[in-house]
Amino acid sequence: MFTPEDARHMARAVALAERGLLTTRPNPRVGCVLVKDGVVVGEGAHLKAGEPHAEVHALRAAKEQARGATAYVTLEPCSHFGRTPPCSQALIEAGVAKVIAAMVDPNPKVSGRGLAMLEQAGIATASGLMEAEAEALNPGFIHRMKTGLPYVRLKLAASLDGGTALANGESKWITGPQARQDVQRWRARSDALITGADTVLADNPSMNVRHGELGHWQSRIDAERLLQPLRVVVDGQARLRPPLKLVELPGPVLLASHTPYTTAWPESVENWQGPKQGDKLDLHALLAELGQREINEVWVEAGPNLCGAFIQQGLWQELILYQAPKLMGHHARGLLALPEYEQMNQLPEIEVIDLRRIGNDVRWVLKPLERSN
Amino acid sequence: MFTPEDARHMARAVALAERGLLTTRPNPRVGCVLVKDGVVVGEGAHLKAGEPHAEVHALRAAKEQARGATAYVTLEPCSHFGRTPPCSQALIEAGVAKVIAAMVDPNPKVSGRGLAMLEQAGIATASGLMEAEAEALNPGFIHRMKTGLPYVRLKLAASLDGGTALANGESKWITGPQARQDVQRWRARSDALITGADTVLADNPSMNVRHGELGHWQSRIDAERLLQPLRVVVDGQARLRPPLKLVELPGPVLLASHTPYTTAWPESVENWQGPKQGDKLDLHALLAELGQREINEVWVEAGPNLCGAFIQQGLWQELILYQAPKLMGHHARGLLALPEYEQMNQLPEIEVIDLRRIGNDVRWVLKPLERSN
Repeated sequence: MFTPEDARHMARAVALAERGLLTTRPNPRVGCVLVKDGVVVGEGAHLKAGEPHAEVHALRAAKEQARGATAYVTLEPCSHFGRTPPCSQALIEAGVAKVIAAMVDPNPKVSGRGLAMLEQAGIATASGLMEAEAEALNPGFIHRMKTGLPYVRLKLAASLDGGTALANGESKWITGPQARQDVQRWRARSDALITGADTVLADNPSMNVRHGELGHWQSRIDAERLLQPLRVVVDGQARLRPPLKLVELPGPVLLASHTPYTTAWPESVENWQGPKQGDKLDLHALLAELGQREINEVWVEAGPNLCGAFIQQGLWQELILYQAPKLMGHHARGLLALPEYEQMNQLPEIEVIDLRRIGNDVRWVLKPLERSN
Repeated sequence: MFTPEDARHMARAVALAERGLLTTRPNPRVGCVLVKDGVVVGEGAHLKAGEPHAEVHALRAAKEQARGATAYVTLEPCSHFGRTPPCSQALIEAGVAKVIAAMVDPNPKVSGRGLAMLEQAGIATASGLMEAEAEALNPGFIHRMKTGLPYVRLKLAASLDGGTALANGESKWITGPQARQDVQRWRARSDALITGADTVLADNPSMNVRHGELGHWQSRIDAERLLQPLRVVVDGQARLRPPLKLVELPGPVLLASHTPYTTAWPESVENWQGPKQGDKLDLHALLAELGQREINEVWVEAGPNLCGAFIQQGLWQELILYQAPKLMGHHARGLLALPEYEQMNQLPEIEVIDLRRIGNDVRWVLKPLERSN
């Protein structure tokens, strides 16, 4: 049984973990608190891949006081040598008396090994305290460990009647500045952004993260430490040609096609050629490739065909829909290309996770009712 | 200045007024509380046109204790002989010392006359306490008194991407049972329901109020006291023919056309022939006719063309939009027929008044940002 004191310390560990939200990729966000005789003697957060894990930061802060302490950690301590030595070993060497983990390692191949290593060294362990909160820190890492695929968020923005642009293509702006800042924050926490060639050809977007547009997250990270997500363009038929704004801006770009380009691209641009599914690029293969590259969270901002394809194929975990209190009418361009259903029970089943006002707009967070992957 | 005690008594008067929500038509919902030496000595609500007004009920309950009391009334007491003698006269005769009205009479021709009559009889008066709450009791009555037109609520229901039916017409059900009960409650408080010939031809709807589907409002009224709103069908070209479900059910029906019918209708059906605007029935003329018939609140449940026409012509005061967490895709039928806009700033400007979950769906209450009437 966990005590209220246990919960208080784990809540602190979760808050520490959140400090790494924008920077730990491809590692998970993890926080650790060391408590001895009711007093916090060390705290730590993992901030950057290759740098020390949360437990190590906390042990360094606690020094000799780590001996006999209880460690609260948001994720089961690792048991393997990765970029750094295993944290379980460090906790053993420091002489902690007890380790409480919010959740076990999501990788089924190593899940429980870190806690077992601690138990074998005579350290008491427990897990499951504030598990939901700990899982919410790392939806992408957890999903990738379990499935090999990144966690896919689809972003859509529309009027109340589902319009995304006027008949002539005019769409600036459907949503207000606060909603657009919110999009920047989702982009900033993502390992990769995906768009489609249609969108690039129509809008020539930057598809980057702009520090000045992060709103209340500007204080979360310095402009120079801000990471640019990998920008991925689904361009099955290799239709794109330079110059493109997203290629000229700093940061890597991946052009995903099923056929080779005949033009040369700058060095920051990689062409990944994948298999076809029907006459389109195989999106599952693309996601598997991104998973291989340790991409945890993917943010998709694309048009009705590409977004519709992710939904039809069940390749999505969240849908973030911004709705502006506008009416655009039947001439407007539509939100999603989906098959011609014949019965209402054929529609994709969706559940509402969150609904809130953002400026003058409304943001829905939706999930598939039954996960298809 | 009003005291907290004043506010407490007026809040009670507002609650009393709400008892008449479903039954006072075409009169306003009004409540009255009589207080003497800090003690409530009488309460009343107007419940049915032709029966006593709220003040008279409260005076009857208070009897001799009305002398020297303060009357809290949600609407300025009337000064004219209507179906009943003027309430100001009754308050004078009962010897009340003070009258506090939440709002003055919305009819500009008589506004302030009731309070003036009281003042002339030596009774202290005040107004404006909880005015917004009092106005919310009678949006239709107030709007009609000011403009001659009823207060128009448009009801729409759609998927997240603005679909209202599959390509084959299938639409049962987009929203869930709680949202459909909510629609029954809006219908029940309305003086008239409007639909279009397209909807009647496609769905043969009942367009009535069903006591068994009022949900938590079932306890508000007995089934036998439930009033059926006037059911209005906009059928410009007189395309409808009997039999129709809405004609067979009890309650009056108004068929609004710009051309005469060639078929005979039952006695409960009236054909009103109005002018054309372009090649359609003039909706403003229809609303003016309904205003003449003392219709306060109108609930429009119609298809994309008729709803779009109300919006284009600025003939609406509220839009109640139910959204189901469903995605229907680009083959689905659209929500609203509106002109082909060329710039985003041409879209009708809308403000969000309320947003809430209703069962698994979401209900928006929206108003035009600038009232066009």
